Amino acid sequence: MRIIGIDPGSLRTGYGIIESDARGELRHVAHGCLNVAGRPFLERIGAIYRDLAQVLAEHRPDTAAIEQVFMARNADSALKLGQARGAALVALLEAGLPVEEYTALQIKKASVGAGHADKAQVQSMVRWLLHLDKNPQADAADALACAICHAHHARTQQRWQAAGHV
Amino acid sequence: MRIIGIDPGSLRTGYGIIESDARGELRHVAHGCLNVAGRPFLERIGAIYRDLAQVLAEHRPDTAAIEQVFMARNADSALKLGQARGAALVALLEAGLPVEEYTALQIKKASVGAGHADKAQVQSMVRWLLHLDKNPQADAADALACAICHAHHARTQQRWQAAGHV
Repeated sequence: MRIIGIDPGSLRTGYGIIESDARGELRHVAHGCLNVAGRPFLERIGAIYRDLAQVLAEHRPDTAAIEQVFMARNADSALKLGQARGAALVALLEAGLPVEEYTALQIKKASVGAGHADKAQVQSMVRWLLHLDKNPQADAADALACAICHAHHARTQQRWQAAGHV
Repeated sequence: MRIIGIDPGSLRTGYGIIESDARGELRHVAHGCLNVAGRPFLERIGAIYRDLAQVLAEHRPDTAAIEQVFMARNADSALKLGQARGAALVALLEAGLPVEEYTALQIKKASVGAGHADKAQVQSMVRWLLHLDKNPQADAADALACAICHAHHARTQQRWQAAGHV
């Protein structure tokens, strides 16, 4: 199963693509950061959609995971983040991907093992889990962590299904 | 010039389409409300994009106007409104439309003549200006008011250009 994780933002949207095999082994496919800073706001929203659609066309993931955002610093940053996330969601949904949402707590627990991890810890653990030769950029690391979280949840769910519990 | 105005929302997105001729006469083309209430949030975001893309394909406007949102009740509603607005913007931008933003004050001044107008006043004035036989639904009326605002601004700009001021 090929999973894309997304860490949306109005300036930088991180993405990370991994593969999870039948034994639960994870393999890194690609990661990056769509940087739309320095352009007028409306152009940024259009660029997030187009750039992400291009990443999806290139790497053809089977499923998507995105952080569920509840809070923002204030209403203004929430409006900006919301529009960026909306553009990213349209790209995922129009590509026909099932989209799962995970809270920041779930994502940090799945990647670092603790809900209070900081950005540097997420970067280090993602690097270690995916055998990367250096720390990924912070937004891309968060996106990879989101994809890892989805791989764990999907695998747990498969086991329960296999055991006849659901 | 055929103008679509958009009043985005995470439950209801109003749209209104008008034509403005060389003399500044306005003609009503269509209006409506994309109601996505009662579905899971992610489905709503996808539906706003798809439903609006269909409206654009049917009515083929030349340009778009959307309310510039600065404020929201709280960060949670700002995040939801932001995602709805992001999905609507992607539909407009992907249709190749130039998008102009107007503040609520500009829109109310252009339609009602006063910045403090309430929803009912906007509905009545839009009905009168566009010779409709009944008040449009509130979100559709706001969208039509946004399109009227754009028609006025575009015409003022044309006059200034014709007079050699810009």
